[in-house]
Amino acid sequence: MSVVTWSAERTSGSARTGTLQTPHGDIPTPAFMPVGTRATVKGVDRNDLIACGADIILANTYHLMLRPGEGVVKGLGGLHGFAAWERPILTDSGGFQIFSLSSKVTEEGVAFRSTYDGSPVMLTPERAIQVQEDLGADIAMVLDVLVGLPAERSVLDSAVERTLRWTERALGAKRRDDRAVFGIVQGGVDPVLRRKSARGTASLDVAGFGIGGLSVGETGHECNAAIEATVPELPDDKVRYVMGLGDTEGMLDAIERGVDLFDCVLPTRLARHGKVLSRSGDYSIKKAEWVSSADPLMPGCTCYTCATYSRGYVRHLFNTKELLALRLATIHNLTYTLTLMADARQAILDDRYASFSAEVKDRRL
Amino acid sequence: MSVVTWSAERTSGSARTGTLQTPHGDIPTPAFMPVGTRATVKGVDRNDLIACGADIILANTYHLMLRPGEGVVKGLGGLHGFAAWERPILTDSGGFQIFSLSSKVTEEGVAFRSTYDGSPVMLTPERAIQVQEDLGADIAMVLDVLVGLPAERSVLDSAVERTLRWTERALGAKRRDDRAVFGIVQGGVDPVLRRKSARGTASLDVAGFGIGGLSVGETGHECNAAIEATVPELPDDKVRYVMGLGDTEGMLDAIERGVDLFDCVLPTRLARHGKVLSRSGDYSIKKAEWVSSADPLMPGCTCYTCATYSRGYVRHLFNTKELLALRLATIHNLTYTLTLMADARQAILDDRYASFSAEVKDRRL
Repeated sequence: MSVVTWSAERTSGSARTGTLQTPHGDIPTPAFMPVGTRATVKGVDRNDLIACGADIILANTYHLMLRPGEGVVKGLGGLHGFAAWERPILTDSGGFQIFSLSSKVTEEGVAFRSTYDGSPVMLTPERAIQVQEDLGADIAMVLDVLVGLPAERSVLDSAVERTLRWTERALGAKRRDDRAVFGIVQGGVDPVLRRKSARGTASLDVAGFGIGGLSVGETGHECNAAIEATVPELPDDKVRYVMGLGDTEGMLDAIERGVDLFDCVLPTRLARHGKVLSRSGDYSIKKAEWVSSADPLMPGCTCYTCATYSRGYVRHLFNTKELLALRLATIHNLTYTLTLMADARQAILDDRYASFSAEVKDRRL
Repeated sequence: MSVVTWSAERTSGSARTGTLQTPHGDIPTPAFMPVGTRATVKGVDRNDLIACGADIILANTYHLMLRPGEGVVKGLGGLHGFAAWERPILTDSGGFQIFSLSSKVTEEGVAFRSTYDGSPVMLTPERAIQVQEDLGADIAMVLDVLVGLPAERSVLDSAVERTLRWTERALGAKRRDDRAVFGIVQGGVDPVLRRKSARGTASLDVAGFGIGGLSVGETGHECNAAIEATVPELPDDKVRYVMGLGDTEGMLDAIERGVDLFDCVLPTRLARHGKVLSRSGDYSIKKAEWVSSADPLMPGCTCYTCATYSRGYVRHLFNTKELLALRLATIHNLTYTLTLMADARQAILDDRYASFSAEVKDRRL
């Protein structure tokens, strides 16, 4: 029995609520994980995250193994102690970052150069697990082979096969019984390959399933189709996590198809550019029309920013490039996203998910 | 009777404690005002400031009249409503910023170009008061004539004379009975001119006294001498505020000479550069020696940063240029500075100020 389990609660169509249990606490799903690449979610701190309603955050193996190094993090209490975050943490394997860099992938692993100092680094499936166990995250992701789209079917197929072999090696390298490992389904937007990857991954002893290689430029329709091909091949009693997805419509569609977990830099990155997520449609707070507005960023929002400050003040902070602008917008966008997940959970409990999803999308048009 | 008054409590030598009463609350003195140039103290928010122990903040007339404009701020509830800061606020007059720009000073006022869009702006003593009354700060400062040092005595003398005439005009332009105006003593580092300026300002109906033109490159000895020449000419029952001073040793020396109030960007600016203020001497948190340190920034400090995070984590945040670095260091440096003021007050109450000041300086060597 893994230390990380998922138990179902209620369904509404294919959408489902449940509880992800981890060594650092339970997470009601569907859930969104704010991204703390370097053991900090940009713009906010732990208290902000808790006030926003975050139950779990994601940190980045690639960046942390290079700076400050997993040994330093381990010595300072692992990620939980290092970042003073007592709730659950998931670490990605570094596969996505390495995919974005010029790297050389062989059967052994991935060779690349550090983005910090150019030094050569080798990441293997075994080392990815060792690093993540040193970082101490509740959930580690296997190192996977990510292929840019569009790609030849043979290339995608090889990536699927290699990812399955790497997953076996990762599970063999697992040492800590108090931590869990998730597999990652690949296969691009090819339903046949997605099914093959999902079946293969499901046959292995993983505690949950990442669905990777999405949100990399494909259409919403292609993304939905890939999820539809994947989910039926996965067991009902384990969690399903679409990696890198975090826009409102995309998450609503994925939940409708039985997905439980998300992460994305979008809410925090958009915030730092002055883009406000809102139930009535996203907008830029930098526009001159808000200069004298006494309204909150989003009427009805209960976040600290909306409860305390006006659009006029937040616009002023962006307009004068003040640091507080970034934090206030980030708090709002994270609260918006986490509230969307809470609302989705309630809609599933009430067995009205499809109409809820349609209403949310409609209000945002 | 002014709405802003200062009442003495205890003395220790020339050092004194007291209470500055304002429309938005009382401030125990000696006190330090964090600088919120554009209606935000860089790196922190209102809750941070309250947790750090800030009783009053300073905002900048020059910057706010240009962006977003005093009319916008007035419409959004004045500075208190705009920045959601319910405690006292002091606004400087803009004299210092204009001194730093290429501006043309005549008897009428100061003509300059906006740092934002280059548009021509005219600031007069009357307009400086009107802008500050619209901003709604508890305490407005008169527009003064600041002279760069070293300067000819005749130039300094003219600045003193003109500042006195401008102070009379400022007081004549005052409209709000629920707000107060402080005069500003000038005179460079010339004791004769300082005495003249202090006597002239003390003869006018101001609610308190800024001591300006210091912390602009003079030595500590010159600064102390200028304060020593000024203070005896000021009435005992009004507050004395050295503008722009905020380093530990400088404030300790000024308090010893009867000064009650300070403001400075130093604690917050140093924080953003990774310089940590500490009882055992200031240091850079960016140094490699802290990479694995589990110690807080300053042992014994009760601030949120020191209570929550290690030097190793804060160094990592600076080393990877993460936003949270700036906030955590700012919280610590402000807490350090505000705690220094609280400790000074206690030492005066205990009539041991001279030994307290010597001990603090000694520990920091």
